[in-house]
Amino acid sequence: MSKLKTIGLDADDTLWHNEQFFRLTQQRFAELLNDHADQQALIDRLEAAERRNLGHYGFGVKGFVLSMIETAVEVGGDQVPASVINELLESGREMLRHPIELLPGVAETVAELAESHALVLITKGDLLDQERKLAQSGLGEMFRAVEIVSDKTPDIYARAFAGFDGGVEGAMMVGNSLKSDVLPALEAGAWGVHVPHELTWSFEAATPPVDHDRFHVVPGLPDLAPLVQRLS
Amino acid sequence: MSKLKTIGLDADDTLWHNEQFFRLTQQRFAELLNDHADQQALIDRLEAAERRNLGHYGFGVKGFVLSMIETAVEVGGDQVPASVINELLESGREMLRHPIELLPGVAETVAELAESHALVLITKGDLLDQERKLAQSGLGEMFRAVEIVSDKTPDIYARAFAGFDGGVEGAMMVGNSLKSDVLPALEAGAWGVHVPHELTWSFEAATPPVDHDRFHVVPGLPDLAPLVQRLS
Repeated sequence: MSKLKTIGLDADDTLWHNEQFFRLTQQRFAELLNDHADQQALIDRLEAAERRNLGHYGFGVKGFVLSMIETAVEVGGDQVPASVINELLESGREMLRHPIELLPGVAETVAELAESHALVLITKGDLLDQERKLAQSGLGEMFRAVEIVSDKTPDIYARAFAGFDGGVEGAMMVGNSLKSDVLPALEAGAWGVHVPHELTWSFEAATPPVDHDRFHVVPGLPDLAPLVQRLS
Repeated sequence: MSKLKTIGLDADDTLWHNEQFFRLTQQRFAELLNDHADQQALIDRLEAAERRNLGHYGFGVKGFVLSMIETAVEVGGDQVPASVINELLESGREMLRHPIELLPGVAETVAELAESHALVLITKGDLLDQERKLAQSGLGEMFRAVEIVSDKTPDIYARAFAGFDGGVEGAMMVGNSLKSDVLPALEAGAWGVHVPHELTWSFEAATPPVDHDRFHVVPGLPDLAPLVQRLS
């Protein structure tokens, strides 16, 4: 059995809060437009627009704002005042400058893991935004490589881990999304570790692969240490 | 004197047309809003918005569309109909699905250079969009590495070339932007080769470093071969 050499870590909602800012902005969006449709209908239409646009925009704040504006004019037509469009633009810029907040125990855990293993950050989203958040986190030095990717596929994981001692079979991917962090990493031949976050975007939902012998769940990032020790 | 081992290539307007699509969309933007301001004033305000937002949005189509919408509501206020916002959104999606068109002689030149040198693609823009264009170009296999970066700085070039035989001193960066492709590459210690394109975004203008002994200009990518041969 191969030993664990490399640990891949997701960023948003694994190292720091993220989804809560999308939820707050979505809430503000629904309030701004509540003359035109009820809240749930607005949020459903926004999600439909996000899904429809994913192939064009990819993941991240800029695409989210474009989908909010699209939905606003879809439901409100010419009745949507300029001030609402401006508020949606401003809420996006606000997300893009919001200071990050590390999840509990993350700084200590990442520093500890970096002493014994090669750490790789693997994240989706807008390039500049993810770089900004990493720089602000103070964790940049802990990672041997940073991969900001347009999607998380088995192939992406195979390539991200290929250059490291032990290759993909000696690697583990850790994150809050079963769909993006765990399932494709398992398919690539790595370990897949789920660290659930109370807020996870509906697009990231998937059935836990409970029978897979390389699948693990830990309640929080600090709980990773014993598992890492056992596999190394 | 170090010998040339690695060639970095810019993508937009070096390998394929790009700026022309921004200009066409900008034109359409100015026509859509010509009840509210004259064309040049609209384009000036759009450029001011792009500059203002660069630190938030970075480079690429999504940020461009957000700046167009911002400028539209800035000049038109509540008078901007939903149909105009929709057209701006649609023009962005159109740019994001527009088939790429290689510049003359690019396919042959890149294939030839790849036989003797390590090629690295180094480009700014939206992650997913740049990946799409590279996949569509059919040139993906020619590159040893692809770096989609949020900005082009001396440090980015130093890191991009560090892993290759000959390091940054044995590397050349080739592109249509003096500001992004040539000057920071020279500062990092590489050769900097300017391949002018008739359309270059105003943000990318800079004074040619005519006295630098590692600076070269070639009229088109196919004219790179003799220079590469001489330096290798």
